Amino acid sequence: MLKLKINHMNIHGDMSVLELIEEMGNSGVLGAGRLYRATELLADVMADEDTAVFLSAAGPMVPGGLRNVIRDLINDGYVDVMITSGANLTHDLLEAFGGRHYRGIEKNDEDLCQMGMGRIADLYTKSEDFEVFETRITELMSQISEERSNLTIREFLTEIGSRVDDERSILHTAAKKGVPIYAPGMIDSMLGLQLWMFTQEHELHLDASGDMHELSDIVYDSKKVATVMLGGGLPKHYALASNILKGGVDAGIQVTLDRSEGGSLSGAPLEEAKSWAKAKTGSNLVTVVGDATIAFPLMVAGARAMINKKQK
Amino acid sequence: MLKLKINHMNIHGDMSVLELIEEMGNSGVLGAGRLYRATELLADVMADEDTAVFLSAAGPMVPGGLRNVIRDLINDGYVDVMITSGANLTHDLLEAFGGRHYRGIEKNDEDLCQMGMGRIADLYTKSEDFEVFETRITELMSQISEERSNLTIREFLTEIGSRVDDERSILHTAAKKGVPIYAPGMIDSMLGLQLWMFTQEHELHLDASGDMHELSDIVYDSKKVATVMLGGGLPKHYALASNILKGGVDAGIQVTLDRSEGGSLSGAPLEEAKSWAKAKTGSNLVTVVGDATIAFPLMVAGARAMINKKQK
Amino acid sequence: MLKLKINHMNIHGDMSVLELIEEMGNSGVLGAGRLYRATELLADVMADEDTAVFLSAAGPMVPGGLRNVIRDLINDGYVDVMITSGANLTHDLLEAFGGRHYRGIEKNDEDLCQMGMGRIADLYTKSEDFEVFETRITELMSQISEERSNLTIREFLTEIGSRVDDERSILHTAAKKGVPIYAPGMIDSMLGLQLWMFTQEHELHLDASGDMHELSDIVYDSKKVATVMLGGGLPKHYALASNILKGGVDAGIQVTLDRSEGGSLSGAPLEEAKSWAKAKTGSNLVTVVGDATIAFPLMVAGARAMINKKQK
Amino acid sequence: MLKLKINHMNIHGDMSVLELIEEMGNSGVLGAGRLYRATELLADVMADEDTAVFLSAAGPMVPGGLRNVIRDLINDGYVDVMITSGANLTHDLLEAFGGRHYRGIEKNDEDLCQMGMGRIADLYTKSEDFEVFETRITELMSQISEERSNLTIREFLTEIGSRVDDERSILHTAAKKGVPIYAPGMIDSMLGLQLWMFTQEHELHLDASGDMHELSDIVYDSKKVATVMLGGGLPKHYALASNILKGGVDAGIQVTLDRSEGGSLSGAPLEEAKSWAKAKTGSNLVTVVGDATIAFPLMVAGARAMINKKQK
Repeated sequence: MLKLKINHMNIHGDMSVLELIEEMGNSGVLGAGRLYRATELLADVMADEDTAVFLSAAGPMVPGGLRNVIRDLINDGYVDVMITSGANLTHDLLEAFGGRHYRGIEKNDEDLCQMGMGRIADLYTKSEDFEVFETRITELMSQISEERSNLTIREFLTEIGSRVDDERSILHTAAKKGVPIYAPGMIDSMLGLQLWMFTQEHELHLDASGDMHELSDIVYDSKKVATVMLGGGLPKHYALASNILKGGVDAGIQVTLDRSEGGSLSGAPLEEAKSWAKAKTGSNLVTVVGDATIAFPLMVAGARAMINKKQK
Repeated sequence: MLKLKINHMNIHGDMSVLELIEEMGNSGVLGAGRLYRATELLADVMADEDTAVFLSAAGPMVPGGLRNVIRDLINDGYVDVMITSGANLTHDLLEAFGGRHYRGIEKNDEDLCQMGMGRIADLYTKSEDFEVFETRITELMSQISEERSNLTIREFLTEIGSRVDDERSILHTAAKKGVPIYAPGMIDSMLGLQLWMFTQEHELHLDASGDMHELSDIVYDSKKVATVMLGGGLPKHYALASNILKGGVDAGIQVTLDRSEGGSLSGAPLEEAKSWAKAKTGSNLVTVVGDATIAFPLMVAGARAMINKKQK
Repeated sequence: MLKLKINHMNIHGDMSVLELIEEMGNSGVLGAGRLYRATELLADVMADEDTAVFLSAAGPMVPGGLRNVIRDLINDGYVDVMITSGANLTHDLLEAFGGRHYRGIEKNDEDLCQMGMGRIADLYTKSEDFEVFETRITELMSQISEERSNLTIREFLTEIGSRVDDERSILHTAAKKGVPIYAPGMIDSMLGLQLWMFTQEHELHLDASGDMHELSDIVYDSKKVATVMLGGGLPKHYALASNILKGGVDAGIQVTLDRSEGGSLSGAPLEEAKSWAKAKTGSNLVTVVGDATIAFPLMVAGARAMINKKQK
Repeated sequence: MLKLKINHMNIHGDMSVLELIEEMGNSGVLGAGRLYRATELLADVMADEDTAVFLSAAGPMVPGGLRNVIRDLINDGYVDVMITSGANLTHDLLEAFGGRHYRGIEKNDEDLCQMGMGRIADLYTKSEDFEVFETRITELMSQISEERSNLTIREFLTEIGSRVDDERSILHTAAKKGVPIYAPGMIDSMLGLQLWMFTQEHELHLDASGDMHELSDIVYDSKKVATVMLGGGLPKHYALASNILKGGVDAGIQVTLDRSEGGSLSGAPLEEAKSWAKAKTGSNLVTVVGDATIAFPLMVAGARAMINKKQK
C-alpha cells in the first residue's frame, strides 16, 4: 500500500514562489497538497506540445485583476483555446477603450447606482466607461458588418480583437496569436446587449451554434486536451462538453469556491465528468478549493517556474 | 429604533407546512427568518396580478425532483416567464420521451461510464434514454424546420413544447399556457448539441439575440417584475439584466448555496443588483442560503398556503 | 444493482410537514433526499427505547430560535444526553432570567457596541440583560457553593438548572427530567467567565475531566447510541469521541453548513468517524447540508409526525 | 471619495513570494486583495514590539503540515500567546514521540479502522503511534504529578513541553521560549482522555478556569493585542473573548472556509466582534476566505519578507 509521510512546510522570508509550492508538495495534504498537484499538472500541460490547453474563465476574472495573467498565458503560447463569459470580454474591452476598474469605495448599492457605479463584490465600474464602451464597440461592429454579415461568435470576437488597439487586451492578444475565444453565453452580457441593439438597424447575424464545428475540429486534431477551469458556469460546461465526442479530456484542473452537494456543475467534482465521457478514464484531475484570484496567480507563477527549471 | 423580540419556534408532530413557516417567521432570524421572508414575498408576488414573475432555474432542478413543482407553478398561472439552462430542458424532454432519472447507485464514475450512466451528484441518467431523446428531438426538429427555418430560441422551445405529448412536461405546459421559456445558453447542452447536428444537414437557424426584443416588451408591459432565482449562472443574470432598461426588478428572491466572496454572480448578494439598476431602489430582496430542493418546495407549499388562506 | 426511480415532488397549498417530507423522500436525491433520510433516521432513534440519543448543539441554536424545540425534545423524553457550548447555556439562562433576544436592528457594529448591544449574525442581545444574568447567576453559584465546593461541569449545570424557575429553560427541563448536559468548553463563555470571577473569592471547583466517568457509563449502559449533531465544534467532537471506547455510535445525523475540504471536524463527513471507531462499521450516518434553523425544525416536525403515525 | 484603480497582476516564472503578494496588493480586490491586506497587517503586528500576537489554531493545522510554520513563529519571537485545540497538541506530541502523519492512502473508512488508521480528510494517523503516545504521555504525567498535583491547563502544557525532547515540537519550543499555550477545550482530545485515565489512579488536578487570571494579566500588560486566527471554534472565541475586559483587540486576522449566514462564530465576520467589545472601534480586521494550509504559509512567507525588507 502506498503510504507517504507528510513533511511539514518550512517557511522563511526569502522564498521564491516555486520554493513555497514545493514546500506545499512536501506536505501534500489538504489545500496545500491540492495546490501543489494542480501547479505540477498545469506545468506539465503548459509544457507539453501534444496537449491543447483550454482555459475557461467564469466569474469576474478580468475585472478582478487576472487580465494580464490570462493575456500573458495566451501571448506566450500556453493557452490554445479560451472559453469565457460575455462579461469578462466586456470588461476586457472596457479597459481596451480606456476605462478602468476601481476599488476602495464605501457606499451602499443605492448610492452607487445614483453615482453611476456598478459593483461586483469589492470592485467597481463607472457608467461613463460603459458609455465609451458603447460608442467604441458600435464603431467596431459597423466596421465588421461592412465586411461580413454572418459570423460565428468566435469569428465575431476575433474580428473585434483584431481591431482593438491595446497590447494588454485578451481579445487583441488572442486575435494576434490565433487563439480562438469562445463565449457560448455571450449574448447575455453588455457586449451581447450592444450587439442586439446594433442588429436592430444593421445586418450582423451571429450563429448560435456555429462554433461547434470549429471547436470539434480542434478537439479531434489535438493529441491530448487539458482544461483549466476558473469558476464554473457555462464556460466550464462548454470546455468539458466539447471533448465528449472524443471520450473526454486527458487532464483537468479547476479552481472554485462552489460546493458540490447541490448538484450544480459549478461545484461538481471533476471525477463526475468521467461518467459522461467528458474526462477520460485515467485522466489526471485536480480541484483546488479557493478564490481564483489567490490560487491562479500562485499556480501560474509556480508552473512557469517549474517549466523554466526544466528547460535549464 | 425598530427592535423585535425573537419568539422561539414551537414544533409538534401535527403541523402543516404553513404553521411551520409561521413559526420560522416568529423567530425571524438566521435561515429560518430568511426562509419565512422569502415565502411571504413569494406569496405576495404570486398573488399580485400586477407583478410578472420571472422564474430562473440553474443547476439540476428538473432531474433533481422539482419538475412537477415548476410545471405546476406554470400551469396554475403563477409564473409568467421562465429562464433556464439547456440542461434542464433536456432533462424535461428526456422524461417526456419516456426516460427517467435514477438514484441509489453506488459505482465509481469510470464504472458508470462503462455502464452507460451519467452522474449528477447522487442522481443518474441512462445513455439509452439519451438515445431515445436524440431520435425524438430530431423528429420534432424535422417537423419544425418544415414550417419555419428561422426562429428565436424562445420560439424554438415553444414549438418543441407544443409538439411534446406529456402533461407533466415543463416545455409542454409552458407552450400550452403561453408562458415563454428563455434559455440564452441553450446551445451549450445536449439539446443544443442535437440542434447543431441537425443543422449540419437541415435549415434551422436560431437567432442568438432574437429573444431580446420580446423579453424587453414583456418587461416594459409589466407593471412590476419579480424574479425568483434557483441557483445562479446565466439564468440568474439574464433574469436580472433583462430588467435593467426599466430600472430593475421590484422584488427578488434567490435560493443558492454559492458564496459571495469570489465575486461570481451566482453567489452575489441581491443588493449588488441595485448598483447596476437591475433591482430598483427600495425593492424587496431576499436570499435563502441553502439547497433549492429543500428550500423551494418548502417555500412553494408555504406560499400556496398563504394565498389559499387569504382567499378564504 | 439497486436502481430506484426519482419521483418528482408534488407540492400543494394544503400539505402537512410530513407530506412534504414524504415528497422529498419520493424524489430521494440531493438535499431533499438527505433531509428525508435524516428525518426518517431521527424518527427511528427517537422512537427506539434501546437507543440513547445524544444531541449536540454548536452555533447560536438557543438564541437563534431553537430553544423551545430542544427543550421540548428533552421534556418529551426524546433526548438522553445533551452536549453544547457555554454560549448556548448562557443564552438559555439569559432568557430564564427575563432577558430576550432581538432582531430587526440596522446598525453597524461600532454603534451597536455604543448602544450596549451584541450581535450574532442578524440577532442581538442587550448588555443590560447580561447584567441581570451576572447578578442572578452569581446568586445561584452562591447557593450551590454553600452546599458543595467540588463538582463536575455536568453537576454544576444540573444544580443551576434545578434552581432556575423557567419551564421553558433547557437547563431547567433537563434537570427536572434527569437529562445530563455536558459542556466541555463551558469555561470559554459568559457563564464560564462568571464562574471564574466567582471563584476568585469563593470555593467552587469544577473538575475539567470529571464528567468522563459518568459519560462513559452512559455509553456502556446504552444498548445503542445515536448522535444528532447541530453544527460541529467541541460538542460534535465530544459526542462522537465519548463513544470511541465502545466502538462508536450506531447512528449519526449532522446538520451543518461547513464544508469538508479544510479538514476541520465541523465540516467532516460522518463516514470519517468510522476510521476512528467513533461510528460503528455499518452504522447509519446522514448529513444534511444546510442551516440548522431551517433543517432541524423541519426534521423534528417530520420525525414527530412519523412517530405519531406509527403509534396509531 | 477614495477611489483606487485596480492594477492587474503581472505574473512570471521567477517571482519571490513577496513579489507575488505585492502584485496581489496592486490588484487589491477579491481574495487577492484580502490576502495582501492580511499579509501586510501580519507583518505589522509581528514587527511591532508593542503588540502581543495571539495565534489561535483550530482544525488540523499541526497534522496538516503547519507544525514547523507555527513552531518557527514561536521560536523567532513572533507569537506571544498560542491558543489551540487538544487535538493539535496531541498531534504535536505524537510526532515528538516519533510518530508521523501519512497521505496517499486510498481505503474506505471501515477498512482504515481495521488497519488501525484514523483519517482526517486526506491525512492519516497510525494507531500504533497513538499507543506510543499513550505510554510516553503517561510517563510525563507521572513525572509532573510527582512534583505538583494542581495545575492550570497552561501550566500542564508548559510542564509537558519542557519535558519533550524534540526541537521541532510546538509545545517544546513554546516552553523553551516562555510562550504560553492555552487550550480551553483540551479535555476533549486524546491528550485529555489520557489525562482523565491517569487521574483515575493519580493525583493531578487541572483547574478548568485557572488560566483566566494569567491570560487577563497578559491582556492588561500588553499595549496592543493582535489575534491571528486559523479556523474558528473554541480557540477563536477564547482569543477574542480574553480581550473583552480591555475593550477588544487592536487588530485581527482570520483565515477560514466557514461562512457567516448560520451565525456560528467560526464563520462570523470579524466586524461582529466590535459589537461585543472583543475588537476595538477602529481596529484593523481582515478576513481571508480560504484553506489555511494555502493562505497561512503564503502570508507568513510574505510577512517575513516584508519585515526583512524594512530591516534592511
